[in-house]
Amino acid sequence: MGYDMRRTHMCGDLREGHAGEEVALCGWVNTRRDHGGVIFLDLRDRSGLVQLVCNPELSPRAHALAHQARAEYVMACRGEVRLRPPEAVNPALATGKVEVMVRELELLNPAQTPPFEIQEGVTPDESLRLRYRYLDLRRSVMQETLLLRAAVTRTVRSYLDENGFIELETPMLTKSTPEGARDFVVPSRLQPGRFYALPQSPQLFKQLLMVAGFDRYYQVVKCFRDEDLRADRQPEFTQIDMEMSFVDADEVMTTVEGMFSRVFREVRGFEMKTPLPRLTWRRSMELYGDDRPDLRFGMTISELTELFASSESRLFREALGRGESVRGFRLDGVTSPSRKILDELVEFARGLGSAGLIWVVREGDDLRSPLSRHLSEEEKTGIVEGLGLGEGEAGLLLLGTFEETSERLSRLRRHCVERFGMEPRTPWSMVWIVDFPLFEWDEEEGRYKSNHHPFTSPKTEHLDYLEKEPLRVLSDSYDLVINGSEVGGGSIRIHRRDLQERVFRLLGLGEEEAWEKFGFLLEALEYGAPPHGGVAFGLDRLVMLLAGRDNIRDVIAFPKTQSGTDLLTGAPDVLYPQQLGELRLKTI
Amino acid sequence: MGYDMRRTHMCGDLREGHAGEEVALCGWVNTRRDHGGVIFLDLRDRSGLVQLVCNPELSPRAHALAHQARAEYVMACRGEVRLRPPEAVNPALATGKVEVMVRELELLNPAQTPPFEIQEGVTPDESLRLRYRYLDLRRSVMQETLLLRAAVTRTVRSYLDENGFIELETPMLTKSTPEGARDFVVPSRLQPGRFYALPQSPQLFKQLLMVAGFDRYYQVVKCFRDEDLRADRQPEFTQIDMEMSFVDADEVMTTVEGMFSRVFREVRGFEMKTPLPRLTWRRSMELYGDDRPDLRFGMTISELTELFASSESRLFREALGRGESVRGFRLDGVTSPSRKILDELVEFARGLGSAGLIWVVREGDDLRSPLSRHLSEEEKTGIVEGLGLGEGEAGLLLLGTFEETSERLSRLRRHCVERFGMEPRTPWSMVWIVDFPLFEWDEEEGRYKSNHHPFTSPKTEHLDYLEKEPLRVLSDSYDLVINGSEVGGGSIRIHRRDLQERVFRLLGLGEEEAWEKFGFLLEALEYGAPPHGGVAFGLDRLVMLLAGRDNIRDVIAFPKTQSGTDLLTGAPDVLYPQQLGELRLKTI
Repeated sequence: MGYDMRRTHMCGDLREGHAGEEVALCGWVNTRRDHGGVIFLDLRDRSGLVQLVCNPELSPRAHALAHQARAEYVMACRGEVRLRPPEAVNPALATGKVEVMVRELELLNPAQTPPFEIQEGVTPDESLRLRYRYLDLRRSVMQETLLLRAAVTRTVRSYLDENGFIELETPMLTKSTPEGARDFVVPSRLQPGRFYALPQSPQLFKQLLMVAGFDRYYQVVKCFRDEDLRADRQPEFTQIDMEMSFVDADEVMTTVEGMFSRVFREVRGFEMKTPLPRLTWRRSMELYGDDRPDLRFGMTISELTELFASSESRLFREALGRGESVRGFRLDGVTSPSRKILDELVEFARGLGSAGLIWVVREGDDLRSPLSRHLSEEEKTGIVEGLGLGEGEAGLLLLGTFEETSERLSRLRRHCVERFGMEPRTPWSMVWIVDFPLFEWDEEEGRYKSNHHPFTSPKTEHLDYLEKEPLRVLSDSYDLVINGSEVGGGSIRIHRRDLQERVFRLLGLGEEEAWEKFGFLLEALEYGAPPHGGVAFGLDRLVMLLAGRDNIRDVIAFPKTQSGTDLLTGAPDVLYPQQLGELRLKTI
Repeated sequence: MGYDMRRTHMCGDLREGHAGEEVALCGWVNTRRDHGGVIFLDLRDRSGLVQLVCNPELSPRAHALAHQARAEYVMACRGEVRLRPPEAVNPALATGKVEVMVRELELLNPAQTPPFEIQEGVTPDESLRLRYRYLDLRRSVMQETLLLRAAVTRTVRSYLDENGFIELETPMLTKSTPEGARDFVVPSRLQPGRFYALPQSPQLFKQLLMVAGFDRYYQVVKCFRDEDLRADRQPEFTQIDMEMSFVDADEVMTTVEGMFSRVFREVRGFEMKTPLPRLTWRRSMELYGDDRPDLRFGMTISELTELFASSESRLFREALGRGESVRGFRLDGVTSPSRKILDELVEFARGLGSAGLIWVVREGDDLRSPLSRHLSEEEKTGIVEGLGLGEGEAGLLLLGTFEETSERLSRLRRHCVERFGMEPRTPWSMVWIVDFPLFEWDEEEGRYKSNHHPFTSPKTEHLDYLEKEPLRVLSDSYDLVINGSEVGGGSIRIHRRDLQERVFRLLGLGEEEAWEKFGFLLEALEYGAPPHGGVAFGLDRLVMLLAGRDNIRDVIAFPKTQSGTDLLTGAPDVLYPQQLGELRLKTI
């Protein structure tokens, strides 16, 4: 207030070319060094920092004020840019060749000593960071991450704008749409006893926008899930949400690939090869035991069950008798592993619930293995060939059902990557996983559940056995996996009422219940619904990957803790009794 | 499903240059005309419509299918574009010179007969439109409005991106910030008895982002107010929200003018003259009786109180004795108004609570008026000069306090514009109203209230009488008024804790209450808060103006009724008892 030095430059933008210019700067005192006669202040703003020189001979007033300045004081200054003397050049700093000779200095706002140091390389305790988020966000790593986030969003929007997508807003105060999680609800004061739900996704609205003929829709939109929070989940999250009419799965994927190509090029300088590989869900389970495989690493799974069809070993005979499989992979990244390392892996596999990990190491023409003497020559050769073992290379095998071995081998594979510090073949690996099963069987509730959501279209060629063999039906669905993380996915939707009703019935939704929950959708499908499909991506997760962070809270300006608390504002909070009264609510 | 004709063109894009090309189209049957041998279908998509010709000689199958087609059926076709015979050209249609000779036709989805006709010029009943919103949105006027909305948002974002603003997301599940309306609240399940509030605006978060050093922030963001709904309000609305550091009011306004210039140029082809006029709040009340004046029309108010200081008329003497004013304006748009018209205006003024409207009409050297014989020559001349009356022109005068005459004259002025169908001088008039009083006195609650919000900065030169004469203090605030509607506003904020605490005290907030509600802000102001200010605009209102609509619901894809109901989905709805139980809530 009351300062009249309109900024001419940002601190971090000053270069040699500015020498001789009179500039006005504003910012925060990053550091202060008192060299007897002269005081140096590093002044910082969003763009970076620059050195101010306060010489009492040039301005006694500025020098006196600089004397009082402390870290994080907000100041404005005016002065001339000059080249630093050669010995004072700081090559580590973008502005390191210049400094500003201060003629006027003004204190805009003093600052208390911050509860933690705002310096590169210092990461304070997280609860302190969240409590003083506005100070945490001053750290350059946080500034860069949120700038990257803005760049991703901007790039996504410009791509979609150029490709005929229309940004359309869907409501936040809406009706519950079951997406597998609990809804956050909002009591209505004007209609006591009734509640809005905050959207878990704009799924039904975007489908209605297709029925309305908007053809291509997108939105970068907040969504909400009232979950018991895991480390990488937030009660509110941001979704890049898209829907297209008159398309098949291939066209959706191609469109998305164009979008991600641009994002990776613009924010990471990485040229993505398109089309991206596409793996069916089944194939992904066979090769990686996982539907979000990290293709930066090898160690694909081979199935060796056949090899042991007539094994002499009781272990294999019994397992195969129970209908189990023998599956495993070649361990990359370490040759001739020691017994200690192998024992450690056996121990890890045991922790996954596996009865026993079988390791083998190729040594010349033989196989070193605890099971060595139970294996026939043919089996040994088969293992070497099946896993593709070179000299000194090890293979890891597990017995169990397809599901058991999938889960365990996938976790073992991820463990090995970490344990042996494997170098990725490429900084980014992207793959589509397609053709998920439409349903899964929920043991607990004794009914089928949608693998994605109830609006996902079964493959046309599987329609005939929808009722007869529901678990055999695959869907027109696709998930995008980047470096082993699912960043989003989607599907072609059901656009005919009769099919939607068949799927509801299979999910155990009675006619009345289906109508009550989804009557408006069923009705809309009867008034000229085009074939359509779409996809949604978690922006937070995507930015986390692009920024190389491993905590979702680091990519959100004001995140919540795992109990859903905002440590900065103290939300959630109690209400005034009057507020509860107006809502006709009572807490119990 | 199962169709394999990938679209090659959009219907509305076909032109003469496409003649001879094989195209594949998808869309909705707009109309069907059976001309005996040949059937014509108009196929419509987002881009427009084109005529399909189904000739049984070219494809008996397509012709048979076309025979069954009804309005709003979804179809795909393939065929050759050809020039229409000259006599069949439709100049009213962008595609009117061509038609598509259909070789293949496919029915993608049939449609029930819609509950209302989807044709230009037909506006169905609004509750029916909201109930079947996906059909209402197929009407070209709705498509155009939402496309315009997307264009406005896109233009705003690109301007702000280019001008150093960073898009940052603030939380939706947050703590109550009092902005004058009720909060919508969200019960926390993980912390029973506690509630989040949905933001009425991201006000405090954007200020914290300035404290965090982001320098320039923007967001196009949903906000919420639980109000008793008026015709032009929605419980959720979209705000263009901005904040800047190290700026004064002038810089914020200049930045906004650049943004609006671009918006008006790109979506309306209108060149806005900048800088926009700026009127102080006081001056606006004097000239228009209103802080959202419509400058497209004249009829500015003149104060004539002085003229009647020694009036012979008891009417004037008594009014002036009570400290009242004499104010009025020259009626534009009608000369030598009839007695009937003048009586009608008197009646209108009476409806506003005015004891009596005094009209005068200049006739030669004399004034026609019911008060004519009570007016001295000097007063008559004074009125003619004061109001600037030409021959035959009428003036309208009111007596009353400044506040009373302001309100009544402003409503009378708006009424005259409508009543006499006045032509605006320019299609768009934009003006800043600045320097609002910081406080107003709330008679009911017996305390001062913030005119904008409690974070608005008083003018530096008024700081001294903050406690002594609070009502004299003006603020560094600005509202943007377009064609008589306030589309948004903002202010320079308080950035020092001591001043913020003084303002809280004046607002009657005890120290403890201030700390409980705003402790995090007060604390942040002590850790190096830069001077900052910002502004927020209602996107819905802005789009409504730009689209020339007069119903806010027409610019929102899925709006709510005045009772907050979504007629399409039926939200808000009752909860399952289990949901209420998990939230530990009871409805009463």
